[in-house]
Amino acid sequence: MSKIPFKAGTMLYPLPAVMVSCGQTIDEYNIITVAWVGTLASEPPMCYVSIRKSRHSHKIISQSKCFVINLTTESLARETDWCGVKSGRQHNKFVEMNLTPVKAPHIQAPMIDESPLCIECEVVEVKELGSHDCFIARVVGINAEERYIDAKTGEFDLEKAGLLAYAHGKYYSLGSKLGFFGFSVQKKTAKRQNKKKN
Amino acid sequence: MSKIPFKAGTMLYPLPAVMVSCGQTIDEYNIITVAWVGTLASEPPMCYVSIRKSRHSHKIISQSKCFVINLTTESLARETDWCGVKSGRQHNKFVEMNLTPVKAPHIQAPMIDESPLCIECEVVEVKELGSHDCFIARVVGINAEERYIDAKTGEFDLEKAGLLAYAHGKYYSLGSKLGFFGFSVQKKTAKRQNKKKN
Repeated sequence: MSKIPFKAGTMLYPLPAVMVSCGQTIDEYNIITVAWVGTLASEPPMCYVSIRKSRHSHKIISQSKCFVINLTTESLARETDWCGVKSGRQHNKFVEMNLTPVKAPHIQAPMIDESPLCIECEVVEVKELGSHDCFIARVVGINAEERYIDAKTGEFDLEKAGLLAYAHGKYYSLGSKLGFFGFSVQKKTAKRQNKKKN
Repeated sequence: MSKIPFKAGTMLYPLPAVMVSCGQTIDEYNIITVAWVGTLASEPPMCYVSIRKSRHSHKIISQSKCFVINLTTESLARETDWCGVKSGRQHNKFVEMNLTPVKAPHIQAPMIDESPLCIECEVVEVKELGSHDCFIARVVGINAEERYIDAKTGEFDLEKAGLLAYAHGKYYSLGSKLGFFGFSVQKKTAKRQNKKKN
């Protein structure tokens, strides 16, 4: 393999492209699509979204201190892209994209009903990092589309939702399954168990 | 659509599952696979990885203040999983996974030669967030596999690399392309341009 220097930048992919919904009143409700988003810790569950100061949602979230991360799917690809390109200053994105705001159980920001999974977040800190401000947040609620939850196991089947991924300027569906977490050591475990049995 | 509360947790997907390489000497070189990783800002390019205090790499990165984010691919799925399950205290992961450490141009941590794209990072701050410490870092170099760079345009074709995505305990390839950033407004722009022309 042969590596050559590439212009320094943001080349960490694939990422989710999520629709972040915010606002404290129906008139203020807005949606911004971001890929600079991620999980920071598991217990307590914490995540972040990074948003440019110039964006309409930046002001809203700075004031309301809360937002919802709405996962996006193949069937929401157009809405996802549009909400990242357009500004809430000129457009009512819920209305124009025919998306449905629904009351979130724990915070004032609305959830997007068409999303398969909506993560309610409360901002705990804002870090200024140059082009973007990073809103560090605590996850205070998760709301999942009922039809994707297995009635027996209670597990959420994200695979059925058809999640969308973003890489280097393009949106993709998820492709074939390559394995589950821990698959690389499963054989050894099975062998060991057989050994014990024998 | 009907939403029901789901146990609060970490349900933000799909994410990258990257191999983070670290260490200042060949004896110390280690690899940890993480999905709690993301881009925080574009200018300057900044990103983070979150790692539990108990992990071997946590100590190494805390001391060396640098690491490399190595993107992973379908063909590296087994190595990616294994480096997330096993500990560098018991295993020399480079040797056991037959991965090749190569000198990074800007920092002491090694790059993984088998990765299509290696992002050199310098830690600027460590945030303690409960289960995980978040290493906030500045991107100081990107090293790309030469064969994926278009000789004419200089663009890096991540699609050819066959990136791997991680969602809710499973690894996936990327599937079909759903559009490029801005595709939802392209038609309108074309129409407007035609209007201007006419």
